[in-house]
Amino acid sequence: MRMIKNNNNPINETKIVDQIRALSIDMIHNAKSGHPGIALGAAPILYTLFAHQLRIVPENPKFYNRDRFILSAGHASALLYSILYLAGFNIELEDLKKFRQIDSITPGHPEYGLTPGVEMTTGPLGQGIATSVGIAIAEKHLEALINDSKNKPIDYYTYVLVGDGDLMEGVSYEASSLAGTLKLNKLIVLYDSNDITLDGKTNLSFTENILERFNAFGWHTSEVLDGEDINEINKAISDAKLVTDKPSFIKIKTTIGKHSKFQGTNTVHGGDLSDEDITNIKEKLNMRDIPFTVSSDVVEDFQYLIYERCSNLTDEYREKKAYLDENKRELLEKITADNKKIDFSSLDIPSLETNSLRKVSGQILNAYAKNNDLFFGGSADLFSSCNNYIENKGDFSASNYIGQNIYFGVREHAMAAIMNGISLAGFRSYSSTMLAFSDYMRPAIRLSAMMHLPNIYIFTHDSLTVGEDGATHQPVEQLLSLRTIPNFEVFRPCDTNEVIGSYKVIMEKEQNPAAICLSRNNLEVLPNTSINDVARGAYIVQKEKVHLDGILISSGEEVHLAIEVANRLFTKGKDLRVISMPNIERFLQQDKEYIDEILPVEKRKIAIELSSSYNFNKIIFNDRYIISQNEFGTSGKKDDVLKKYGFDIESLEEKVASLL
Amino acid sequence: MRMIKNNNNPINETKIVDQIRALSIDMIHNAKSGHPGIALGAAPILYTLFAHQLRIVPENPKFYNRDRFILSAGHASALLYSILYLAGFNIELEDLKKFRQIDSITPGHPEYGLTPGVEMTTGPLGQGIATSVGIAIAEKHLEALINDSKNKPIDYYTYVLVGDGDLMEGVSYEASSLAGTLKLNKLIVLYDSNDITLDGKTNLSFTENILERFNAFGWHTSEVLDGEDINEINKAISDAKLVTDKPSFIKIKTTIGKHSKFQGTNTVHGGDLSDEDITNIKEKLNMRDIPFTVSSDVVEDFQYLIYERCSNLTDEYREKKAYLDENKRELLEKITADNKKIDFSSLDIPSLETNSLRKVSGQILNAYAKNNDLFFGGSADLFSSCNNYIENKGDFSASNYIGQNIYFGVREHAMAAIMNGISLAGFRSYSSTMLAFSDYMRPAIRLSAMMHLPNIYIFTHDSLTVGEDGATHQPVEQLLSLRTIPNFEVFRPCDTNEVIGSYKVIMEKEQNPAAICLSRNNLEVLPNTSINDVARGAYIVQKEKVHLDGILISSGEEVHLAIEVANRLFTKGKDLRVISMPNIERFLQQDKEYIDEILPVEKRKIAIELSSSYNFNKIIFNDRYIISQNEFGTSGKKDDVLKKYGFDIESLEEKVASLL
Repeated sequence: MRMIKNNNNPINETKIVDQIRALSIDMIHNAKSGHPGIALGAAPILYTLFAHQLRIVPENPKFYNRDRFILSAGHASALLYSILYLAGFNIELEDLKKFRQIDSITPGHPEYGLTPGVEMTTGPLGQGIATSVGIAIAEKHLEALINDSKNKPIDYYTYVLVGDGDLMEGVSYEASSLAGTLKLNKLIVLYDSNDITLDGKTNLSFTENILERFNAFGWHTSEVLDGEDINEINKAISDAKLVTDKPSFIKIKTTIGKHSKFQGTNTVHGGDLSDEDITNIKEKLNMRDIPFTVSSDVVEDFQYLIYERCSNLTDEYREKKAYLDENKRELLEKITADNKKIDFSSLDIPSLETNSLRKVSGQILNAYAKNNDLFFGGSADLFSSCNNYIENKGDFSASNYIGQNIYFGVREHAMAAIMNGISLAGFRSYSSTMLAFSDYMRPAIRLSAMMHLPNIYIFTHDSLTVGEDGATHQPVEQLLSLRTIPNFEVFRPCDTNEVIGSYKVIMEKEQNPAAICLSRNNLEVLPNTSINDVARGAYIVQKEKVHLDGILISSGEEVHLAIEVANRLFTKGKDLRVISMPNIERFLQQDKEYIDEILPVEKRKIAIELSSSYNFNKIIFNDRYIISQNEFGTSGKKDDVLKKYGFDIESLEEKVASLL
Repeated sequence: MRMIKNNNNPINETKIVDQIRALSIDMIHNAKSGHPGIALGAAPILYTLFAHQLRIVPENPKFYNRDRFILSAGHASALLYSILYLAGFNIELEDLKKFRQIDSITPGHPEYGLTPGVEMTTGPLGQGIATSVGIAIAEKHLEALINDSKNKPIDYYTYVLVGDGDLMEGVSYEASSLAGTLKLNKLIVLYDSNDITLDGKTNLSFTENILERFNAFGWHTSEVLDGEDINEINKAISDAKLVTDKPSFIKIKTTIGKHSKFQGTNTVHGGDLSDEDITNIKEKLNMRDIPFTVSSDVVEDFQYLIYERCSNLTDEYREKKAYLDENKRELLEKITADNKKIDFSSLDIPSLETNSLRKVSGQILNAYAKNNDLFFGGSADLFSSCNNYIENKGDFSASNYIGQNIYFGVREHAMAAIMNGISLAGFRSYSSTMLAFSDYMRPAIRLSAMMHLPNIYIFTHDSLTVGEDGATHQPVEQLLSLRTIPNFEVFRPCDTNEVIGSYKVIMEKEQNPAAICLSRNNLEVLPNTSINDVARGAYIVQKEKVHLDGILISSGEEVHLAIEVANRLFTKGKDLRVISMPNIERFLQQDKEYIDEILPVEKRKIAIELSSSYNFNKIIFNDRYIISQNEFGTSGKKDDVLKKYGFDIESLEEKVASLL
């Protein structure tokens, strides 16, 4: 327990700000790398937020109804860590001394799950602000699900610090535009405006009127002309909190590298400061020039300010929670649980009278979501193609926050970033678009994998069999490029049973994201597909009849082709086994016995997949035996397209026969 | 040669618009798929542009000084093809009947290189408008390089048709913001504003004030309230052309699916219309209800309008070109040549007194660009890290269009899309950022590969040896996900010689994009590296001394580790060969003799690469012999990070020894 101020001495706020600055540059100097510019420039902003606005419980950083603070400008990590330390989070001075060192809790950019008080992994610019929109969306939705007119346990704000780089990234525009449409008034963005980026002055590349831009998006905007003025910053935030129907954007003019001899220039953006510069800065700030000097008065005063505002948060929340009915309490338990596994056995599987995997996918998702408000997601303007609309749960909109279906618009990247926010707030988020457009989402998908978030990505139109829409809409390289992301699983089911099986495995995951890739076309249910075997990644979907002459391995839509090829070749005296492999990575993790059982080493194996040949090289070395697609597709009727690339039955039969 | 009107009958413009509409819906009905909504709604906009503004030479669609028209809303392909057909481009009625069919020149979305008059491949939303910014940037730059106060051969406009979807995509904001900063007054965007997207009304997800947004970006904006009013549309475009210091954005209110019984709803966005609906539409338009009926009057009138404005374009350009000095004429020849190969032998290689591959890369690029204005590119705010600034060529800005260095801002996605535009305009474009952020660029990189554009992507900080910046800045999956893109080459040189060799191969490419991936760290020049052998993808960089005990294969920075491991193991009695493999795909394309020579089949091979194990499975089947990185990295000193993942010399030596 840290000490709390109990005298009436006036608090010297400037001294606290300068303490934050000194610690930050000490960290960077000690590490010999980092970003002193924003740490020196934006210290008053973060100080004001933490001292006067942010409702947090430092000793319980995961307290659910805390206000969130997202450092979108992730390179300001030293600034964040020094503030978290001074505020009383479980970070020691020793941790600050290990800034940017191996196995420390103070890495070069903030990492979710590693440091108490760090709400998400940031560093790639634009992601923080976009993900914050997701956190704010989740807050509105949970408010609608939990609160009533008298009892309001859910009531947090989401604050973000952004720099110019964040605001130049497309994903920040996409998400901000949607935030305006959704009137997310509890989202407050603080813009550290210092007119400098890594390469020089922002006016070389970024001259837009940023307040006008956010006005155009339907935001409340304001400006603080002096970023050193704590009262003005504080007032701007307080004013923003009074706005009831708009998110807020506060532009705060700062000086990058404030007090350094290079202040106001890009020289001070990244890289260590010199000994001399640090000595001079500390002299200016009236601080002792001994690294990592911390004044206990400063700590006491800063923590007092936080304690005074926040000490009753936990009790208040507990009281309010006690008034909730059992269903709502249960939902809150799920939301706050670390383990997001959802049991399959309780699932009421509908009768599935369709061969459209997209429709089946939608029905299974609906079955899961029917009695479980843990699910929250939407589509990038493709509900009608991807079929992931949740029935009877309404549209999420500014006038209906209880609605579960989010219309992300044609904004795949923001959708993925927002999903991260929704997951960070405790929901299980899902989304949909076409597989070819997963490319737009990659930076945010990568962060979901890095943060171990259990996001569900539904990607339809998963191969050249898209047909008429042509090459731009036909994925070729996407399956592999998703499969290669660490912590990420890719499922490509071949029929209804495997769709169910894929969802089963995905929902039972305790953490980590997954994609389910679905054909555009109707595919009949195959006789021997298995719900449960999807968990093993691959299994025998059609056994050889008498004597094993070879093995065809395939996934998704092509499994149907492989079976047809096997059947045709059987009449010609070749007895083939067919393996369905909806998840390569899972299969490779099975024990050797199982792998050897279904894929005996001595037998000829041939893979058939409408995707890059790299996919199957872990199973079949020689590319000759991988019938794959290594060029872009073309526009035409599905069957014509297949024929053009040798994926029609006749060509495949001939090819396979020649390879046996 | 098509006939030209020579009587004085008044032209019935509505009839031409309706002819375009009828042809478009006939095409879609014939194909049984397509997007009738925008074809019916935006026909008057495209008609006005082609009939009254666009300066084109239908019989010579590649005429360099033509105005460009980019259909960013690529799903309106039927509309574009019918207009191109009626305008007299080399498209036959038969081609329209083959819309969306295999091997036709009228694919589902427009494809560059396939259809006369199609300026780029579109379909993935947002790409068209962003690439158009690149085309307009290239125009300004070429104007500055070629024109003088009296003689102005280069003088084209770039027009774009966008829909709501384009404007929701982040890349459209990024590029538009930069276009405003750069005051690209010859860029004119026509916005088909119909309040409808695939999933329903745009107000579910997109309520921003779009004109205010473009004003905030520094654009001229205007609005046409009736999208059927040709005169108003024409006037708005004419007014936009008078603006000398801003790009222009014209919002035109249209009715999606105009004249269909589903007009104004998302039902008519995609999918075929019914027979009945088509009959009714044609009745309304007073047209014969026979598919693909074309009135010769209409053709004559439409082509007359184009001819009248454009017939002297070619002669004028030829005359102006004749007045240019030899250097300028030579540059224009290069710009307009299809083959973008640049000879290495003429290169004046500087003395390279550094071990920083990033610096060497910059010096080679500078050597190429020094006497050749064909190069044009920049950086996403990382000139100072990626070292691709071209010396003595100035910054490209609104006040200095002759400058060659483009400050793209922190906008990787727009950078890649703009590169496509610059390449389409005939330059060789290049860019730089860190490899981890290549994820942001993928949708535009994909289009560069699809269009065979010879873009050069310089990606630095190419592995976990980034060190302190941590996991978000450390690429793991990026090398593979780039290697899997069709038509795309990835180079990962290990030292100065291989950097030179990589540039040599890249510059000698006649078409298709390539990436060069560079370590952040200084790497000494190895004794046996080769400039010329890079073209073979791999070669022996250190031969075994006496007896071949095994082979280490590596790329980039890890080649240095592999050599060190080989040297250490030699003292312990193991004689290893080391292969440097800067380009896997190229190596796999070598003849069998060469492959077997450097990688004898019977010898143990071990790969060492700080990247996904998938990369080397084509060369080494068993993952056991691929020392790779399949998890995200961490923040720490480079050597500590290497040690943590077993990539320090001691661990590698032990690992390799155990595998031999």
